[in-house]
Amino acid sequence: MLGQMMHMPLMISSLIKHADAFHGDAEIVSRLPEGDIHRCTYSQAHRRSRQLANALSSLGVKTGDRIGTLAWNTHRHFEIYYGVSGMGAICHTINPRLFPEQIAYIVNHAEDSYICFDINFAALVEGLVPHCPKVKGWIAMCGHAHLPKTDKIPNLLAYDDLVNSHSAEYEWPEFDENTASSLCYTSGTTGNPKGVLYSHRSTVLHAYAAALPDGLNLSARDSILPVVPMFHVNAWGLPYSAALTGAKLVMPGPQLDGASLFELFESESVTISAGVPTVWLGLLQHLQTNKLKLSTVKTLVIGGSAAPPAMIKSFDEHFGVTVVHAWGMTEMSPLGTANTFKHKHLQLAAAEKDSIRVKQGRPLYGVEMKIVDGGGKILPNDGKAFGDLLVRGPWVLDTYFKSEGESPLRDGWFPTGDVATIDPDGYMQITDRSKDVIKSGGEWISSIDIENLAMAHPAVMEAAVIGVAHPKWDERPLLLVIRKKDMDVSREEMLSFMNGKIAKWWLPDDVVFLESLPHTATGKLLKTKLRDQFRDYKLPTA
Amino acid sequence: MLGQMMHMPLMISSLIKHADAFHGDAEIVSRLPEGDIHRCTYSQAHRRSRQLANALSSLGVKTGDRIGTLAWNTHRHFEIYYGVSGMGAICHTINPRLFPEQIAYIVNHAEDSYICFDINFAALVEGLVPHCPKVKGWIAMCGHAHLPKTDKIPNLLAYDDLVNSHSAEYEWPEFDENTASSLCYTSGTTGNPKGVLYSHRSTVLHAYAAALPDGLNLSARDSILPVVPMFHVNAWGLPYSAALTGAKLVMPGPQLDGASLFELFESESVTISAGVPTVWLGLLQHLQTNKLKLSTVKTLVIGGSAAPPAMIKSFDEHFGVTVVHAWGMTEMSPLGTANTFKHKHLQLAAAEKDSIRVKQGRPLYGVEMKIVDGGGKILPNDGKAFGDLLVRGPWVLDTYFKSEGESPLRDGWFPTGDVATIDPDGYMQITDRSKDVIKSGGEWISSIDIENLAMAHPAVMEAAVIGVAHPKWDERPLLLVIRKKDMDVSREEMLSFMNGKIAKWWLPDDVVFLESLPHTATGKLLKTKLRDQFRDYKLPTA
Repeated sequence: MLGQMMHMPLMISSLIKHADAFHGDAEIVSRLPEGDIHRCTYSQAHRRSRQLANALSSLGVKTGDRIGTLAWNTHRHFEIYYGVSGMGAICHTINPRLFPEQIAYIVNHAEDSYICFDINFAALVEGLVPHCPKVKGWIAMCGHAHLPKTDKIPNLLAYDDLVNSHSAEYEWPEFDENTASSLCYTSGTTGNPKGVLYSHRSTVLHAYAAALPDGLNLSARDSILPVVPMFHVNAWGLPYSAALTGAKLVMPGPQLDGASLFELFESESVTISAGVPTVWLGLLQHLQTNKLKLSTVKTLVIGGSAAPPAMIKSFDEHFGVTVVHAWGMTEMSPLGTANTFKHKHLQLAAAEKDSIRVKQGRPLYGVEMKIVDGGGKILPNDGKAFGDLLVRGPWVLDTYFKSEGESPLRDGWFPTGDVATIDPDGYMQITDRSKDVIKSGGEWISSIDIENLAMAHPAVMEAAVIGVAHPKWDERPLLLVIRKKDMDVSREEMLSFMNGKIAKWWLPDDVVFLESLPHTATGKLLKTKLRDQFRDYKLPTA
Repeated sequence: MLGQMMHMPLMISSLIKHADAFHGDAEIVSRLPEGDIHRCTYSQAHRRSRQLANALSSLGVKTGDRIGTLAWNTHRHFEIYYGVSGMGAICHTINPRLFPEQIAYIVNHAEDSYICFDINFAALVEGLVPHCPKVKGWIAMCGHAHLPKTDKIPNLLAYDDLVNSHSAEYEWPEFDENTASSLCYTSGTTGNPKGVLYSHRSTVLHAYAAALPDGLNLSARDSILPVVPMFHVNAWGLPYSAALTGAKLVMPGPQLDGASLFELFESESVTISAGVPTVWLGLLQHLQTNKLKLSTVKTLVIGGSAAPPAMIKSFDEHFGVTVVHAWGMTEMSPLGTANTFKHKHLQLAAAEKDSIRVKQGRPLYGVEMKIVDGGGKILPNDGKAFGDLLVRGPWVLDTYFKSEGESPLRDGWFPTGDVATIDPDGYMQITDRSKDVIKSGGEWISSIDIENLAMAHPAVMEAAVIGVAHPKWDERPLLLVIRKKDMDVSREEMLSFMNGKIAKWWLPDDVVFLESLPHTATGKLLKTKLRDQFRDYKLPTA
């Protein structure tokens, strides 16, 4: 027997309709790539989203077509999010920081029909044009006054002129909530980038969960500044949750340095912001160097990688700001966990609270989470056992875009590629990447734990630990070290420094000193390359 | 093109699974009808819900079967919510305060197969038995020690024994999220009660929205005490949102007086509670009489009817407690609006804030809301125009249970039966019931506004205003007054008292003095009866 409630699909357009109807005068403030500050309201943004939908229709854009963006966080990008998805097309956000060849691959794989770009990416676009022949037109996100002066971009349009020349008379269509709404590619350390195709349903459910008090805690009393770019998993969903709650939205454009962010925080009464640790280190430095205070910010959300505990402490003690750890993935829309306290934690001493806050957090309702061993057996949530972290839920990826039915799932669960512990209270902590964990005699050794220990030696500048083949134990850890300039440490000194500080069987079987370690474009250790390099390395214990 | 995210239905069982997995030790504390305090955890409640599902299966209960409850808020009722809906059957909560004939009608209309009841309703059940021959068994919510000693209840079972005698080995089934999960009848002033049939989808979406910071603002740091009964629109969804957030849950059982509530508030560190204004007046009186303070409560949510402004002020100024106005209906699961401030309101003076707080609040995302005039034309959200309040959304009723396709909707919108204003910031305020508004010459007059004014006269004990037929204006207001004992006021004195305090054309055309006014079982003015009584009344102006 079915319930007898209304059948209303979850539509992205209903978010901006809600914001317009009940928070029409709430502001969207943007620092534009052109340099100036732009102010508009949800009502105006809704109006322009509808004009954009008419404009794209007039260009022949249809349901399911992909519209690419190479753009920073601005009101225009916000309008594109709603205009494109709202009309039933797919908003494909492209990371402009990728190598141009990767971007061209992504544009062609997605078959983008039009690409909207910020004017400071004009040179990048000029380089893309010859490699992306199927793109019908390139839309510069500016008015005609700022249109890039180039003859290397065919079918070049000015976004503002395009929008302004069309009517706002447009009724958002209603359709299956499982319809694709947006597309974001994830670039791993191996292979081509893979596309994650979100739906209206997954996006709206995620927007609810992200706004919860135990998520990012968003309300109409907030002024939200998403530092995390809109090309990075939809700015963690903030443009959607902001409309859901009617919060003020402050868009920082391309300037993400400490000074520029501080200026917007103060001038726009920002209450919450979100970004990766490097951004907050930049802000912290700016605050400390210039002896500044934050007047209105209450929460900084940190994702992307773990926040240094010292930074969490500094923001808390000196600036009255709570740093909230969050964790997720492109394949998870992205939010999986956020780190907030429980009722029983409120009376804990500061040190005990700190030990909870360094973890990645508890799953939001909607995300199921478990850890399993190499054989797929579920491990206990005891905060000690660590295993492959698997997730599932209505905003978790099922298959990659155009993957021809190839499923990345294991028994219906998505393997995150992370190795983690989950404690009895549900707090998850990442201990390693699945590919990097060292499998020794059926047991797992965390490469990150050993690296952190090695880095604590005063002579070590950088360290990497990889598993190397071993005839008896399958794999054993090999420690690779770059020494600090003018400092020295021997293999034996390294090992004796570590001895007693980790389990005996975790001690590396050998130490190799190198001049450099390979990194990805985003600064992460490229362990695949190291494993290739040391594939035939003979350990002294072998 | 469809998105490529996981197809996971929104299931009520996933709420209790989440609470078990990540908040397993969070408590559910109940004051039982037997008199004692019972303590258990989400893990234990989840276990017992599964035992219940096995027990009901063994009794032959199948998908879609209705299981009735006549019960207060306790851990057992919580287990029934999850066990019954989780297995695919329908949890039918029955209001024990209704007249026995209405209850019998509801049980027979719903075709309840089993009915679970609190032992203090044993006498009520004895009276129902002869009128409800299709009920297969009656389950007393107790162990065998407290089983009512009666031979008037056939097939009498003890709930605890039934649960304890079955295994907890049970996998919640996964099915269409639109499947019916629960049923609640609404009793208007006319006709038979009508059933609202909720679905898993509507319930889960409502649970997300209710927990939002601009909803009831629920987190794992809360200890929630739902005073609003679980037979009254699922206790406003709190048993679901509590599991979603992992909050502690405090169930007050049948004792809802100020002293009993205060005791639980203090002993269980309650942070938020929800109920109707009379409950909070009782609590306020208890606090004032005994010079008590509330140590942990931060928020009292008020629904059912408007909260007196003086009460809101008292709780705020003397007890540091924020009273949050919420509004909804059985047909809306029930939450439609909650009254919280916006970013721009935070700097307002106290008086300006007070003028916002008396309204019913802003719609939660998921509820669309508009006001229309008699012809269906949309009226402006200017805080002045008032019209029929229409709503729609995924947790709003489509049709009533077994209504044979008869739709209560107007162009896809549900008419709430309320007349309201909506201000430019989206705050809705109810001004009248649609049936009671007086239609005079194409314009509407609020009966409630005139009643409130009449009540302000020192000699008036109670007042009612109804529309009476008028040859020129269609309807004109007639004021009906009960004078206070030993006090007198004339028709002319009444009219001159009101003159100048409302628009001239709102002044009643006549005043009639009565000895009593008719009321419903729940104490509301029965205006239908008054209209019948004065159907042929001839106004002096006619």
